Amino acid sequence: MAASKLLSVTEIGTHNTPSDCWLVVQGQVWDLTEFHHEHPGGSAIILKYAGRDATKAYSEVHSPSVIRKHLQPDKLKGALDTSTVDDEWLSLSLSESGNTQGMADGVEGPKPPLETVISSHDFEVVASNTASKKAWAFYSSAATDLVTRDANNFCFNRIWFRPRVMKNVRSVDTRTSIMGVECSLPLFASPAAMAKLIHVDGECAIAKACERKGILQGVSNNSSFSIEELAQAAPNGKFFFQLYVSPDREKSAALVRQVSLLPQFKAIHITVDAACPGKREADERVKADESTSVPMSDARAKNDKKGGGFGRLMAGHIDPGLTWDDIAFVRKHTHLPVCLKGIMSADDAILAMKAGVDGILLSNHGGRNLDTSPPSIITLLELQRRAPNIFDRMEVYVDSGIRRGTDILKAVALGATAVGMGRSVLFATNYGQEGVEHLIDIMRDELETTMRNTGLTSLDEASPELVHTGDVDHLVPTSRLHPYARKVAKSRQRGTAKL
Amino acid sequence: MAASKLLSVTEIGTHNTPSDCWLVVQGQVWDLTEFHHEHPGGSAIILKYAGRDATKAYSEVHSPSVIRKHLQPDKLKGALDTSTVDDEWLSLSLSESGNTQGMADGVEGPKPPLETVISSHDFEVVASNTASKKAWAFYSSAATDLVTRDANNFCFNRIWFRPRVMKNVRSVDTRTSIMGVECSLPLFASPAAMAKLIHVDGECAIAKACERKGILQGVSNNSSFSIEELAQAAPNGKFFFQLYVSPDREKSAALVRQVSLLPQFKAIHITVDAACPGKREADERVKADESTSVPMSDARAKNDKKGGGFGRLMAGHIDPGLTWDDIAFVRKHTHLPVCLKGIMSADDAILAMKAGVDGILLSNHGGRNLDTSPPSIITLLELQRRAPNIFDRMEVYVDSGIRRGTDILKAVALGATAVGMGRSVLFATNYGQEGVEHLIDIMRDELETTMRNTGLTSLDEASPELVHTGDVDHLVPTSRLHPYARKVAKSRQRGTAKL
Amino acid sequence: MAASKLLSVTEIGTHNTPSDCWLVVQGQVWDLTEFHHEHPGGSAIILKYAGRDATKAYSEVHSPSVIRKHLQPDKLKGALDTSTVDDEWLSLSLSESGNTQGMADGVEGPKPPLETVISSHDFEVVASNTASKKAWAFYSSAATDLVTRDANNFCFNRIWFRPRVMKNVRSVDTRTSIMGVECSLPLFASPAAMAKLIHVDGECAIAKACERKGILQGVSNNSSFSIEELAQAAPNGKFFFQLYVSPDREKSAALVRQVSLLPQFKAIHITVDAACPGKREADERVKADESTSVPMSDARAKNDKKGGGFGRLMAGHIDPGLTWDDIAFVRKHTHLPVCLKGIMSADDAILAMKAGVDGILLSNHGGRNLDTSPPSIITLLELQRRAPNIFDRMEVYVDSGIRRGTDILKAVALGATAVGMGRSVLFATNYGQEGVEHLIDIMRDELETTMRNTGLTSLDEASPELVHTGDVDHLVPTSRLHPYARKVAKSRQRGTAKL
Amino acid sequence: MAASKLLSVTEIGTHNTPSDCWLVVQGQVWDLTEFHHEHPGGSAIILKYAGRDATKAYSEVHSPSVIRKHLQPDKLKGALDTSTVDDEWLSLSLSESGNTQGMADGVEGPKPPLETVISSHDFEVVASNTASKKAWAFYSSAATDLVTRDANNFCFNRIWFRPRVMKNVRSVDTRTSIMGVECSLPLFASPAAMAKLIHVDGECAIAKACERKGILQGVSNNSSFSIEELAQAAPNGKFFFQLYVSPDREKSAALVRQVSLLPQFKAIHITVDAACPGKREADERVKADESTSVPMSDARAKNDKKGGGFGRLMAGHIDPGLTWDDIAFVRKHTHLPVCLKGIMSADDAILAMKAGVDGILLSNHGGRNLDTSPPSIITLLELQRRAPNIFDRMEVYVDSGIRRGTDILKAVALGATAVGMGRSVLFATNYGQEGVEHLIDIMRDELETTMRNTGLTSLDEASPELVHTGDVDHLVPTSRLHPYARKVAKSRQRGTAKL
Repeated sequence: MAASKLLSVTEIGTHNTPSDCWLVVQGQVWDLTEFHHEHPGGSAIILKYAGRDATKAYSEVHSPSVIRKHLQPDKLKGALDTSTVDDEWLSLSLSESGNTQGMADGVEGPKPPLETVISSHDFEVVASNTASKKAWAFYSSAATDLVTRDANNFCFNRIWFRPRVMKNVRSVDTRTSIMGVECSLPLFASPAAMAKLIHVDGECAIAKACERKGILQGVSNNSSFSIEELAQAAPNGKFFFQLYVSPDREKSAALVRQVSLLPQFKAIHITVDAACPGKREADERVKADESTSVPMSDARAKNDKKGGGFGRLMAGHIDPGLTWDDIAFVRKHTHLPVCLKGIMSADDAILAMKAGVDGILLSNHGGRNLDTSPPSIITLLELQRRAPNIFDRMEVYVDSGIRRGTDILKAVALGATAVGMGRSVLFATNYGQEGVEHLIDIMRDELETTMRNTGLTSLDEASPELVHTGDVDHLVPTSRLHPYARKVAKSRQRGTAKL
Repeated sequence: MAASKLLSVTEIGTHNTPSDCWLVVQGQVWDLTEFHHEHPGGSAIILKYAGRDATKAYSEVHSPSVIRKHLQPDKLKGALDTSTVDDEWLSLSLSESGNTQGMADGVEGPKPPLETVISSHDFEVVASNTASKKAWAFYSSAATDLVTRDANNFCFNRIWFRPRVMKNVRSVDTRTSIMGVECSLPLFASPAAMAKLIHVDGECAIAKACERKGILQGVSNNSSFSIEELAQAAPNGKFFFQLYVSPDREKSAALVRQVSLLPQFKAIHITVDAACPGKREADERVKADESTSVPMSDARAKNDKKGGGFGRLMAGHIDPGLTWDDIAFVRKHTHLPVCLKGIMSADDAILAMKAGVDGILLSNHGGRNLDTSPPSIITLLELQRRAPNIFDRMEVYVDSGIRRGTDILKAVALGATAVGMGRSVLFATNYGQEGVEHLIDIMRDELETTMRNTGLTSLDEASPELVHTGDVDHLVPTSRLHPYARKVAKSRQRGTAKL
Repeated sequence: MAASKLLSVTEIGTHNTPSDCWLVVQGQVWDLTEFHHEHPGGSAIILKYAGRDATKAYSEVHSPSVIRKHLQPDKLKGALDTSTVDDEWLSLSLSESGNTQGMADGVEGPKPPLETVISSHDFEVVASNTASKKAWAFYSSAATDLVTRDANNFCFNRIWFRPRVMKNVRSVDTRTSIMGVECSLPLFASPAAMAKLIHVDGECAIAKACERKGILQGVSNNSSFSIEELAQAAPNGKFFFQLYVSPDREKSAALVRQVSLLPQFKAIHITVDAACPGKREADERVKADESTSVPMSDARAKNDKKGGGFGRLMAGHIDPGLTWDDIAFVRKHTHLPVCLKGIMSADDAILAMKAGVDGILLSNHGGRNLDTSPPSIITLLELQRRAPNIFDRMEVYVDSGIRRGTDILKAVALGATAVGMGRSVLFATNYGQEGVEHLIDIMRDELETTMRNTGLTSLDEASPELVHTGDVDHLVPTSRLHPYARKVAKSRQRGTAKL
Repeated sequence: MAASKLLSVTEIGTHNTPSDCWLVVQGQVWDLTEFHHEHPGGSAIILKYAGRDATKAYSEVHSPSVIRKHLQPDKLKGALDTSTVDDEWLSLSLSESGNTQGMADGVEGPKPPLETVISSHDFEVVASNTASKKAWAFYSSAATDLVTRDANNFCFNRIWFRPRVMKNVRSVDTRTSIMGVECSLPLFASPAAMAKLIHVDGECAIAKACERKGILQGVSNNSSFSIEELAQAAPNGKFFFQLYVSPDREKSAALVRQVSLLPQFKAIHITVDAACPGKREADERVKADESTSVPMSDARAKNDKKGGGFGRLMAGHIDPGLTWDDIAFVRKHTHLPVCLKGIMSADDAILAMKAGVDGILLSNHGGRNLDTSPPSIITLLELQRRAPNIFDRMEVYVDSGIRRGTDILKAVALGATAVGMGRSVLFATNYGQEGVEHLIDIMRDELETTMRNTGLTSLDEASPELVHTGDVDHLVPTSRLHPYARKVAKSRQRGTAKL
């Protein structure tokens, strides 16, 4: 399947129309005449490079394997005869790539040395200064007025520790087990889309760091790299796969089966909180470059009437018709544990338990989907208040708002098996694998410090007694009904107007 | 009645005194010698244009029909002989109109393209930068320290959703019925005065947009256009009329009868929260141009000792003597449903129900009348807590503070049939009809997104269980009495001092 | 007693030593050789002008009558022979007065026209820009971290109205009776010291304005003008006198008798919250000019080691040994009603009632004495909660934090007979009598607007049901004991450790 | 032991290698060839000065006695022959010392005159402007997001006084007894490390000021001066010693015995809240100069991978294995009362009482160790609520957040015997002894003012009734269990799922 035929730039240049469209990608010449109609990112971006070299634009979004997966071998027309490359060819490629998204665009200065970055907040600040405008907008944005995004972390700060002293804390043990998988920390990388936007190694950098540090990585359905590439990058890594159930169930089934074949993958997390993409205004406001195609999206990555939001464009392949019945459907195609990602109420946690899922990830998608959805730590408290037995029956995870080791321990004390970090990991990826490793080291340090200063030596000792939640208890529902509702129910029952 | 006689600028110019006063308006020459004494906006503004062309100043405030309605046909003296117009005539008109209010004054730059406006907040920002100072001051101002204005929206953000997942939300239905009228959204344009200040098409632009998008429009008693003009602009539109009951009841009766003749008008909303105009300091601080006359006002639109507030000037025709008896009076003159606009307590909601009105609009006038009056969503909660059966007996609407689709759904979940937006619609009118349509599209998108992400497919499914109000419940009264009062009552009853 | 002898500047100039010290004040030549030792403001300021003209410095602090009151007639040596005034004499006087405090110093620009001032806040802003630094510091400062000063007003804004609609409010009546005195408003000018700092007419301007507008004025023990001067300025005025009980009881008795002779004075308010002057850091930081002497103070008005605070310097004549027994003492010397100013707890209100005083003024001295003392409106609520019968037994007033008509009505609804404004009146005095009248007009307008928009026509109709206090109820004590104390008491009683 | 031999700069200069290393300190020449390996601050800083004069760098961190204590007499090689000093020698010393930490570095301007400093806040502001960057960072920093640091003081401001009036407060008595030691104030200097960073006299300045003003001083285990030097500086002073228990128990025992020999030392406070040094990011971010060695630390004072935090570096000698058993161990080596510093829960206060300690210092280390640990005043309230009898059984102290006299009285009213101030004392040390005396005077003035204005004449009269804590009561735990836990316990007991 290697390209044997050498093709000159002159010849390639003649295939530059919609009805006869060749592109050079990584030295190989492909015929995209038929495919460009089916391109998830739209025709336009392909036709823009018709008869030319599209390597740079391609690499910024796709991993090397993507093109081979989507195209039949006969579409490979040959290899670029590099001896024929001339100035015009080069300048065309360069002038285009100057517009493309990625690290080059929007970089406002060099990144500070990694050793000066000492917290997850620091990674965020560096990213805001050095990532491309689009990457920053896509990662940092959240739904409408950002109430939930900001409350996610703020609620952690309103929960106070009740630290105990004079306990021998010479050695502390942060290890835990997640779905039977030994992990060095009760922390995982939350699945997040399109990590390539901030670093060329994208999710591969994350995978290698997590493997090295012994923590679990959640892989997004919209990952820039394929699951096989990630498994190859981190052969001893431990992953779970985040699944958006597609309107085309068979496609999802195939994907689940494919994931289940890889021994590195330990669980499937079905996302349930994305019935509709949130309105992320910062994301919408930044026009994406046309060369950035969006995974799973039929639309090109450019502004439509509503803006240029990646999140919205990606949502085309997410089925808003997902129901509890789909759990059984997913189970049919995998032997892996099945979890639900995006539970936001004790009521649905109870339903999940009754449906027999193996775990739930309390998450509001980082505040990205529904503004004024409850902070995840509040949902965890709702479980403690309304359905405490749930913690004996399945694993409960939390993400959205985790920034500190103190946050991790609070969630664990309130019943969480582990917590996920999404945005922070993406911002750390700004420094590649080394950055992510540094972030994990920071979080472990903070967690150990917190354990010692609260008097714990192992996570098993963490219980709700470790925290005082009096400053947020009023945010926690006490029953399925609205507190005024009982009165309504009663007065209606009596058929009296009670006015 | 058309003016047959052509009059030269020289001749017109001789009628330039209080006792002999002609004006040119839209090419026609009127004798205002008698009328200027009765002009609601005062004599001065008319005399300023005595013997000259007042078209521009007139158009900025009045719709074309107004002058014909107020003047007898014999006051039309003829038509301007345009062949006689010379430079002096033109320069006089221009120099004056340079001072007038409207889009020209205060515009600080061009409006951004409409497609970059993606939320109601955006419309507000654009208006603050591009509307005239007076229009901005009049629309954005509220009573004294703005506590209620700001709390109106803030309280929505302190109410949290309890979203449910894994419901099939492929199709969602935002339609509802308001007073038996089918509407595409549980949203209407709240009646608001003087939309011409921000766009020459004023309420007509709103009418056309609402008609096109299938939502209801409330027409202010102080509309820049007459109800007939609005009905003509949107022959398939659906309106309700907001009535300020005049100290001269017969005038109000005539107006109600006039409204009731138009098939497009579906209800009468009597404003009950404007016994006295609020003190809107921003409005008072901006001196109005003398050429802007104020509907229903005897005063000229210029600063008096208290300032230049439009709101206060308009209030001269509102009767502070309005009582519950007036409901029967209004009913006598119309077959339309009668609602009350401006209910701020469960106690008055109960009285309204007993008085047999068809609906109530919980409103604090956007915080414009009484500072520290309760946020409307809190009043809605008071109804849920103290008089939940009310929702079975009449329709309840809410305005004041609605900015997002999430706000709409919260109000509906707590029992509202529909909500109104006032300021946002005015700010959208900055872009004319197209702007208002865009705003409605935005609100529908946001509402649908919210419904999907909370697990609803139709508004019928929305109930108080959808929200958690623990963060605002302390703001909601639990009984008619002050909570300490029982003790007082009891101790007084016993005749003991209890000190 | 008029000075018959004309004295030349040369002769006057020879009496310029501590042992032979003459000064010119308002054209008259006084011998202060003996008096300067007894000068409340200290020797230095007098000696500074020995042999020269001190008129300007004198006038900025003292009213014309003071010098005659303190000096025997034989100390008047004659009149300045103005024909002998030369440049040197003039330049000496001018160079000194350039340093003195008063309107000249610190004025940063002209005051805006009075008609553009439309709220009490506006008066404050204008004063901050145009008053002398020392006047601003003295008036605006409060104890240490300003917590109470700011909470005073903020707590009003956290109390919500429960407005009623459709009541006939065509005419509203703001009149009330205070200690049997008819007043046009439930508002009085709180006693405040040294009004001359901001305007040459000082308390006289306030007196004339209050007389004209029919409201009561509280006169400070540290007034710049004597009570006789005020009674003369406003012969039909109505005053109460604020008394600091002196360590020298006989002095206080004389003062009370003197006040009681004037028919314009209707009550005595004994200040009880000033056992010790508060630490008002802004006041301490601004060095006072030496020419400003402080009423009742032995110290000169200049920085000592603790700073230059007027408030502290004045406190030398206030007895920290004041007790409940002193009420009887005061009563012995007056037929007037006796009230206590500065009650901050229901417990002391109850004691006051038992002691038979005629009224109490709930006040924390504008937050000037004890930081984190309770906001006055909270103390009023404490009375409602813990001792509601108190309102039947004596009049209750409130000051500290009143800025709006809404504040007035809230206090009245919660049981206050009337409220006082201190700082606002001083800031209005910046414009003299006209300014104070304008302020009173503003407050009446705001109060009437508030009454109409809450559905009241007279103050009698105001009751606690008019407001909802759920946002501040947690600040209101429920009993004399600390809520945890019962447990302590009980466990101690049982002699058990209960740990 | 005096150095008799005079050594020339040339000769000294030849001993400039790790294997032959002499230094000049205060005119004496020491051989540090062996010692530099054991230097707590690391080798590098010593080797940097090999063969040269290190006096300046030494003095900035160490007191004069330190070198004699650590080195055998035979290491003193002689005295510097000052006649041999030449320009090169001088310039080498100067160029180095230009880099050293201390007052010179970071000084941004002269300190304002002490008399203009009128509050503890002022001292902080001055320090932020004039202390070296490292001193400011080390003193002002706290753990991670500073939530606890800021809440410490803020919670005091949310506690309201309930002031009583008309009590004879002519004379007030602020004296109290701490562990049987008469003190002029219920205030002590909290132990704090490395006071030399801000002033050359460091803890000696504090000692002299406290001695003069009659208050107790806590001496840090990491003091810049030895306990003997402090006892010598303030022979009539009263101290307690703050002990970090070392992993090498025998070292701690020796230290305790050494302290117990000095009559000025009245108690031992074992620090129990520093199992692990907090992450103080400001401290980590400021690179320390290499010349600053850190007491008790094996590491050099320069950035490692985690930053340059002094706090962390010092922690090497603190045993995270400290347990309740160690109390008995400490008791074996001293006759002094033993207290625990750093109690943060009523549960540990109860254990401390059961363990028979003499007192506890409620402290969260100024928020420096564990962020979101509870504000100390909240822990004091927890004791009042959950274990009020504790106050009869041992003395309770409070530090962290004390800034005002009002704070002192609130703590005393809620049961504290005395309170400590740490940072404020360090900031006052910026002005040496005089500064600390001024701070103590300020605090006494503020306390007396507060006592008078709340109606107290002695501290015995202060009880919980003096304050209202309704604004912070929700932050105070009510039992050892989490409030939701009872339900869990019950439902588990029944073996029912209750979902």
